[in-house]
Amino acid sequence: MRIGIIGSGNVGGTLGSRWAQAGHEVAFSSREPQSEKMKQLVAKAGATARAATPNVAAQTSDVIVLTTPWTAAKEAIESLGDISGKVVIDVLNPLLPDLSGLQLGTTTSAAEQVAAWVPRARVVKCFNTVGFNIMADPAFGADKAVMFYCGDDAPAKKTVKQLAEELGFDPVDAGPLRRARVLEPFALLWISLAFGGQGREIAFKLLHR
Amino acid sequence: MRIGIIGSGNVGGTLGSRWAQAGHEVAFSSREPQSEKMKQLVAKAGATARAATPNVAAQTSDVIVLTTPWTAAKEAIESLGDISGKVVIDVLNPLLPDLSGLQLGTTTSAAEQVAAWVPRARVVKCFNTVGFNIMADPAFGADKAVMFYCGDDAPAKKTVKQLAEELGFDPVDAGPLRRARVLEPFALLWISLAFGGQGREIAFKLLHR
Repeated sequence: MRIGIIGSGNVGGTLGSRWAQAGHEVAFSSREPQSEKMKQLVAKAGATARAATPNVAAQTSDVIVLTTPWTAAKEAIESLGDISGKVVIDVLNPLLPDLSGLQLGTTTSAAEQVAAWVPRARVVKCFNTVGFNIMADPAFGADKAVMFYCGDDAPAKKTVKQLAEELGFDPVDAGPLRRARVLEPFALLWISLAFGGQGREIAFKLLHR
Repeated sequence: MRIGIIGSGNVGGTLGSRWAQAGHEVAFSSREPQSEKMKQLVAKAGATARAATPNVAAQTSDVIVLTTPWTAAKEAIESLGDISGKVVIDVLNPLLPDLSGLQLGTTTSAAEQVAAWVPRARVVKCFNTVGFNIMADPAFGADKAVMFYCGDDAPAKKTVKQLAEELGFDPVDAGPLRRARVLEPFALLWISLAFGGQGREIAFKLLHR
């Protein structure tokens, strides 16, 4: 797949690097694609990775991964150009600056807001519920961390599921896009625990019996 | 401990029965403590269980467990009388009638609302994030389901932690009471999954490494 990463910080960098190493063509993007940090990221990710502007990364990809801060999301999305029909993975969490809560919720979600901004793109909420360190390696001994995704487009969800599986997650369909109203607070639970004494090396397993 | 269960449906019935079987003195309560259903519940729970009105259950207990529907919570709490200083375990989820979302959230939570109603009681949010079937048995083979709790009173949280451990849960402190803004949506995730294809025999394990 051709994957465009919008926002190449810890989360975007980790996801893109791992997909690049799995053989996908990954375009990392930021406002400064020529920066030293981007060069290092691309060099580390390998031969199938490159740096680009957000617009180029989006236009040359089949799958677009949104990993900017929430406050930068609207401007970033507007810079992508026409992304009709593309799969958009929404990793955004509308966190308050002090991580004490969410700016949206209950009656809407960042994912639904994103979908309203790009009504012809196929938005899937995913990869928002654990830190980048877990995305780098979702294995806990024999256990796999669960990764929930939700969306209203079945083929797009299938794509995202595969991408999560390739990272080593146990991907679980959490339902329609409005379920992001639950997955975004769930991210805040991980964050609260990680920075509230448990440390970052935690994740959830979905138990069945 | 002397435990008063306010609302004796599936959740209250299961929690109270298990604590009674562990040797605690449990008062189940409902508006109709003499009903056939209550008699059966008490008989099944054993010698340390009894039925009572909500007021009596609360007044004769050290720990009060709120398990009514959200829409009945305020009236039920008002019927308890003075519960200053008592530990109050808030199991309430402010679910919309169709389970599609929450009535409160982001800027507040059911737990904070409850604490405002009983400002001198020591409210802990807990037991709201899985179904009663998991409370009946939190074991999944060698794995234990996690149970998050949050609150602003450390001794009260210690009490609740012990009660969760006695049920077989892995209890994890999720922080202050306002973290219920996260634990209440987390409940909705369990509900969404349970009724969205995964079935009720699911729970979460908190993975560490």
